Amino acid sequence: MFESAELGHKIDKATYAKEEPKLREALLDVQFELAQTKKFPVIILVSGVDGAGKGEIVNLLNEWMDPRHIQTHAMGQPTEGELERPEMWRFWRALPPKGKIGIFFGSWYTWPVLHRVFGDSDNQSLDHSLENILRFEKMLTDEGALILKVWMHLSKDRQKTRLKELEKDPKTRWRVTARDWEHFKLYDKFRKVSERALRHTSTGDSPWIVVEGTDTRYRSLAVGTVLLDALRKRLDQAKQAQDKPKKSNAAPMVKSLDNLHLLRALDQTQKLSKKTYEKELEKYQGKLNLLSRHPKFKKISIIAAFEGADAAGKGGSIRRITGALDARYYQIIPVAAPTEEERAQPYLWRFWRHIPRLGRVTIFDRTWYGRVLVERVEGYCAETDWMRAYGEINDFEEQLASRKIILAKFWLATSKEEQLRRFKEREKIGFKRFKLTEEDWRNRKKWDDYERAVCDMVDRTSTGIAPWTLVEANDKYFARIKILKTLCARIEEAL
Amino acid sequence: MFESAELGHKIDKATYAKEEPKLREALLDVQFELAQTKKFPVIILVSGVDGAGKGEIVNLLNEWMDPRHIQTHAMGQPTEGELERPEMWRFWRALPPKGKIGIFFGSWYTWPVLHRVFGDSDNQSLDHSLENILRFEKMLTDEGALILKVWMHLSKDRQKTRLKELEKDPKTRWRVTARDWEHFKLYDKFRKVSERALRHTSTGDSPWIVVEGTDTRYRSLAVGTVLLDALRKRLDQAKQAQDKPKKSNAAPMVKSLDNLHLLRALDQTQKLSKKTYEKELEKYQGKLNLLSRHPKFKKISIIAAFEGADAAGKGGSIRRITGALDARYYQIIPVAAPTEEERAQPYLWRFWRHIPRLGRVTIFDRTWYGRVLVERVEGYCAETDWMRAYGEINDFEEQLASRKIILAKFWLATSKEEQLRRFKEREKIGFKRFKLTEEDWRNRKKWDDYERAVCDMVDRTSTGIAPWTLVEANDKYFARIKILKTLCARIEEAL
Repeated sequence: MFESAELGHKIDKATYAKEEPKLREALLDVQFELAQTKKFPVIILVSGVDGAGKGEIVNLLNEWMDPRHIQTHAMGQPTEGELERPEMWRFWRALPPKGKIGIFFGSWYTWPVLHRVFGDSDNQSLDHSLENILRFEKMLTDEGALILKVWMHLSKDRQKTRLKELEKDPKTRWRVTARDWEHFKLYDKFRKVSERALRHTSTGDSPWIVVEGTDTRYRSLAVGTVLLDALRKRLDQAKQAQDKPKKSNAAPMVKSLDNLHLLRALDQTQKLSKKTYEKELEKYQGKLNLLSRHPKFKKISIIAAFEGADAAGKGGSIRRITGALDARYYQIIPVAAPTEEERAQPYLWRFWRHIPRLGRVTIFDRTWYGRVLVERVEGYCAETDWMRAYGEINDFEEQLASRKIILAKFWLATSKEEQLRRFKEREKIGFKRFKLTEEDWRNRKKWDDYERAVCDMVDRTSTGIAPWTLVEANDKYFARIKILKTLCARIEEAL
Repeated sequence: MFESAELGHKIDKATYAKEEPKLREALLDVQFELAQTKKFPVIILVSGVDGAGKGEIVNLLNEWMDPRHIQTHAMGQPTEGELERPEMWRFWRALPPKGKIGIFFGSWYTWPVLHRVFGDSDNQSLDHSLENILRFEKMLTDEGALILKVWMHLSKDRQKTRLKELEKDPKTRWRVTARDWEHFKLYDKFRKVSERALRHTSTGDSPWIVVEGTDTRYRSLAVGTVLLDALRKRLDQAKQAQDKPKKSNAAPMVKSLDNLHLLRALDQTQKLSKKTYEKELEKYQGKLNLLSRHPKFKKISIIAAFEGADAAGKGGSIRRITGALDARYYQIIPVAAPTEEERAQPYLWRFWRHIPRLGRVTIFDRTWYGRVLVERVEGYCAETDWMRAYGEINDFEEQLASRKIILAKFWLATSKEEQLRRFKEREKIGFKRFKLTEEDWRNRKKWDDYERAVCDMVDRTSTGIAPWTLVEANDKYFARIKILKTLCARIEEAL
């Protein structure tokens, strides 16, 4: 895989002097068009062998193009706050929005590769990391991102020569550290592991691009040209509105044949009297409070996710939880239509940004499941998009679980009749009237479609690591206590 | 994930009597349309819990539809011949062609799941198998296959009840074995592992479909309806010619900036005199023969893959290899345009069928690399297709390597001038004239495109486990000896 990058590619001074200004101008042009049209984000990973000019390339791209539309991220060791979140969290936070270019100098490949080289992991565990990366990158390209994965390569001899040259020159000597020589001793191992990584992650949608790093002029023109060609191609394709197929090729979801489904199977006659409710509320709020002050609570974090039809009682239930918690340690995220900033990112981005650190609680009032509920039912996204979302959401939640984040998902189920009763009540009571909108009545008309979407959602995303709790919510008292109980049980289990 | 399949779904006798004939007729209709249009193959996996009616469903589908267009495969323990090939070999052999339905009763999921349940593997190794399955299924769906993955489910209680019922009835007692009860004891473990498998492999293109297996009428209608809806949807889509985008979204391949590339970098002045050649030929043919009679040779197998421009000397080189081997143990596969049968399958299928068993040698005269050479250059497949092929080919070769199959890949490189000299020579010599066709002259006009495709191919598929050997072939003697030497070295390394 590295053969072509060991041939000794070179560009002479005269050619470079002629080509460089043309390339810069063309790059500025496509960058401007990208920034104007905001069709897709560009993600550039700069990886490779030490001394192959990774840093120089990053600087050069910033120099050649308009740096206001470039975000450069030098990803070193994760910080304390980053270590408290899933591994990919810091990369999610750094993703460029549509119209911008994000350069990752040190990327999601860096640590899996280095761990393997230094013998801290084996091939199987490297492959496991690579598969996670593949899923992540597939999600990004499915969401429209252009990913350029540039691998700067040097042959073993050239790397040695280069390090010696840098050391000889007093002006550059500081750049060669003991760590560089230590890495050099591992060259063969590093090459082998890198080859494995490149082989497993060169896909049709985001292949690796290997560039020989020996000659400064060659590698500069090579990377610049790759970037130019890729941007030009994608911008042209966007103009022709060449889109992914809207209809999925998969089998359609299973229809209900016998009128029985998860929501209908719920026993909505379950009720609590006001007196019992108040007693239980005190009991479980007290319990939740105690749990939240348990010493081990600082080693986990909680996400409580609420979904349910309009007027199902999400707000009231959430208040019964927060009532038991210290306001400094929880955060409520009400999820409405995405903001402009959020629309410029993959749909999961706006949830990733709110992942709590250890010892904290985040409560989502509506969640990432909007993708497979409202967006599906209202046709806000294509069938292919919501069909792939189940798997993407499972991946997301698996990453949460891997970092000891307890995820409790609640669907508050009310009957159609009960919803109507509550709507009418809201109309009557002045201070509740603002809670009822035209949209609520519109959504109500699609009751059956929503029910079907909910059942499909539970079937595909209720898992051992992140089960759904279906809450019989025709009686608010019963619902609130069931939610508090479930949450307490999940936390107790984890402590 | 199994919630909906534990609700106790049922269909009453009267409804069934009304629905079943309609379903059968509709199924026969879509099956006929599929067989006529031959647009895509249908792959049905029937998996799930013991006693949930997997066997009955398979029989029923064969009864309801035209069994001439259905191929049913009950995959048990692999046979001796199958164990000598990569794990997926037997599944490749069993893939249905376009227009047919293949039912796998026992699939590529069976053993990874059972190994995990019985504790013969851990989660990481299960995940590894699942990721390989994902790649395999993605390749199939990218090639147009409709994959239906049906999971027949029973709750723990129902499974117990069912086994007891079967045991009570003298007519069905024979069906309940000690193994069934042993499996039952592992129900919880099995459920957990299955959930993991389903969660990791439910993708947007081929999601799992979970069906409750308690009630015979319900599960029959459910599976039949799923199949009907899926076929109907895909047949309609095929009519609307809704195709995948032809142009890849990926960055274009790197262009050569300095006129230097792998083929130009070869030293074509290397020559052998006739005398030296004959001496060396004797030496290395003797060596190859000895190696092929080494006791350990029975534990490996060899694939030698030849590619090169027209008149590069592939045939002559192959004869120098076979000259050293026992005719009973090798096979030459000349690869021309695919046959009708082969065109009805994914493009790698026709190579999988020739994977040698242990102790054997298979020589391919042209190979699976046609996908990224002639098919790319001549536009026989879309950009998206050949772009994904590099990864698919690497996966394929990794599977070969995992079963101790030595893969030696040779690109025979001649200069454009040397090719012209050979073409002219062929025109002159009577018995060689048949070797030169109009097509050879046409291909020659695209020399530069082919060279570029070769360089891209080597860059993306020359790996530690399956390296390319570029052979300087302007001198036939030199080329043949280099090939023999390389092959001997690869075999020696493996023994």
